[in-house]
Amino acid sequence: MTEAQQPELTKKNGNGLVIALDAMGGDNAPESVLKAADAFIKKNSDVRFLIFGDKQKIAPILEKLKSLPRKSEVWHTDEAIADDEKPSSALRRGRNSSMFLAIKSIKDGQAHAAVSGGNTGALMALSKYSLQTLPGIDRPAIGGLMPTRDGYSVMLDLGANIHCDAENLFEFTIMGTAFAKSVLGKEHPSVGLLNVGSEKNKGHDVLRGTVALIEESGLNINYHGYIEGNDLLTGMVDVIVTDGFTGNVALKTVEGTAKFFSHKLKDGMKKSPLGLLGMGIAAPALLKVKKKTDPRMYNGAMFLGLNGIVVKSHGGSDHIGFKSAIEVSYKLAKNKINDHIVTEMISYGQVPMDDVIDIEDSISLD
Amino acid sequence: MTEAQQPELTKKNGNGLVIALDAMGGDNAPESVLKAADAFIKKNSDVRFLIFGDKQKIAPILEKLKSLPRKSEVWHTDEAIADDEKPSSALRRGRNSSMFLAIKSIKDGQAHAAVSGGNTGALMALSKYSLQTLPGIDRPAIGGLMPTRDGYSVMLDLGANIHCDAENLFEFTIMGTAFAKSVLGKEHPSVGLLNVGSEKNKGHDVLRGTVALIEESGLNINYHGYIEGNDLLTGMVDVIVTDGFTGNVALKTVEGTAKFFSHKLKDGMKKSPLGLLGMGIAAPALLKVKKKTDPRMYNGAMFLGLNGIVVKSHGGSDHIGFKSAIEVSYKLAKNKINDHIVTEMISYGQVPMDDVIDIEDSISLD
Repeated sequence: MTEAQQPELTKKNGNGLVIALDAMGGDNAPESVLKAADAFIKKNSDVRFLIFGDKQKIAPILEKLKSLPRKSEVWHTDEAIADDEKPSSALRRGRNSSMFLAIKSIKDGQAHAAVSGGNTGALMALSKYSLQTLPGIDRPAIGGLMPTRDGYSVMLDLGANIHCDAENLFEFTIMGTAFAKSVLGKEHPSVGLLNVGSEKNKGHDVLRGTVALIEESGLNINYHGYIEGNDLLTGMVDVIVTDGFTGNVALKTVEGTAKFFSHKLKDGMKKSPLGLLGMGIAAPALLKVKKKTDPRMYNGAMFLGLNGIVVKSHGGSDHIGFKSAIEVSYKLAKNKINDHIVTEMISYGQVPMDDVIDIEDSISLD
Repeated sequence: MTEAQQPELTKKNGNGLVIALDAMGGDNAPESVLKAADAFIKKNSDVRFLIFGDKQKIAPILEKLKSLPRKSEVWHTDEAIADDEKPSSALRRGRNSSMFLAIKSIKDGQAHAAVSGGNTGALMALSKYSLQTLPGIDRPAIGGLMPTRDGYSVMLDLGANIHCDAENLFEFTIMGTAFAKSVLGKEHPSVGLLNVGSEKNKGHDVLRGTVALIEESGLNINYHGYIEGNDLLTGMVDVIVTDGFTGNVALKTVEGTAKFFSHKLKDGMKKSPLGLLGMGIAAPALLKVKKKTDPRMYNGAMFLGLNGIVVKSHGGSDHIGFKSAIEVSYKLAKNKINDHIVTEMISYGQVPMDDVIDIEDSISLD
């Protein structure tokens, strides 16, 4: 990389936001990334993008797009993190990758958020290394939106932490509550712990320990109780807290079941004599349900608890999915999610007052 | 209970099977239990039932039924296990309950299987106490059927064991394989371990330990590898092995998502101008999918690994659901599931030869 290839990066964008994009992460990159950014910018003129990746691959796509060229800068690098690259290897040899440079631009004060469709483990490792966690937060979690009848709930952790102790789940409770307040607009979000039954004696010690921490914290948490797998999409609670193993399995089970249901329905209609007519009439409704349960439409897993906003797009997603991930990063930045988390941690007394000035300095980007 | 109230129990039923029913377990008992048995017997004339419960409540329902009276005996007890009764309390004071007597009739050689809609924890505790585990099996598991596009897979554990080590999951692998062979009729059933990714380094030590045990066992297990939540309903594997916490959450997530999907679809159709017509045409297809994903239709969680066949019906199920649970117990008994499990354990070398004669004696009921 020569000096000439580096545009002068700046997060100055009036009152608008700057979002860094890893243009090389994901199966359909860089095309899906650039098309997504172009579509997003048409409706959100207050955003500018920093695009990290291979200029030779980016330029031909970029010049065909209408809005993005005027609203973006490209930072060239020909290195990228492989889809199957282990986090340890990414940390060792990925410091010039498009993924890392996108993350680093947050730390350097050039961007407010970063989005990547690259591999999750590497993205989390590089993000943790570069941004570190928010004061008082031991482990970041991956959060995602679960569709409900009237809106969305947030669930975390979706896979960053295979093993969790009660302290971890308690921190997830705080982060999820801050998210539901600031991004989902819930005034006093309710929290449920995912378990195998709703009775108090159900489950394991970590869950019981988490309940104790919530109850003894003195924080104004709207704790609902244990919830079960069949409660996930009912909107029973606004925040679903679980360990990364269970959360990952549950999320993917929702996706798989929605797919199964939709296939079965189509198969059944095809066999019916009036099936074609029925399909025609049912199509809009089916489309609506599919849209609501389409993983692309709520694509964008949030890394919560980092000292910076990082969003992971599904590796297999197209430009529609990637656009949804950009939207998530935009909402997180706009609503200053990290300010809310830190405020909660301060009232919990987890953050020493000495740190507070540093924090406020580092998380207020504009 | 006086001597006069006890009919002479016998499992003699020609070549047929005897199934013991806890008539008092579940929200709709005893009506749902008796109606289910009556419906079942109409199509399966080789079955006789032993009905355990309150004669005063049972008699008025029984006399209205056509087939059941000639094919059943009622054993009176006015004690029952409460829905919220803890396993420890059930063990202490439940020895004269309808649930325990149904289980005990297997041990006493009077029945080939037992079905109850009562509380799961108590049913497992009483079953373990009375029947004990099969030789070589450390912990029984709850198995259930997962619908797939062309049939069913079996998943275990669905909630009996919150914590599992590699030995437990390995035993579940053997039990699940025996079930898929003998009941689902799969010649060489494939096995998948539920995880957060398919790559070998994913997940936790217990899963890696299970893979090692499978590979080193010398048994002819058709091990497929790790599978994820979105693979559960694809039929990718015949046997899905997981710990009881994850399995319980995944099962209930499938149920909840199917419900969500079906509600959303109906809501959407109602709003469409041709919705009513579309509903009419789509109805048969929707019904078929609902049937396939209806928990009632594959109701009947099997307690695998016990020295006797016990099936748990969902507490909230009606007679259709309970009939499905009876059907499961019938298939397990008919296909001598426990003989298959023990055969596998013998070839694995887990069962000392001294025990084998005892085992074969105890598991061959007829």
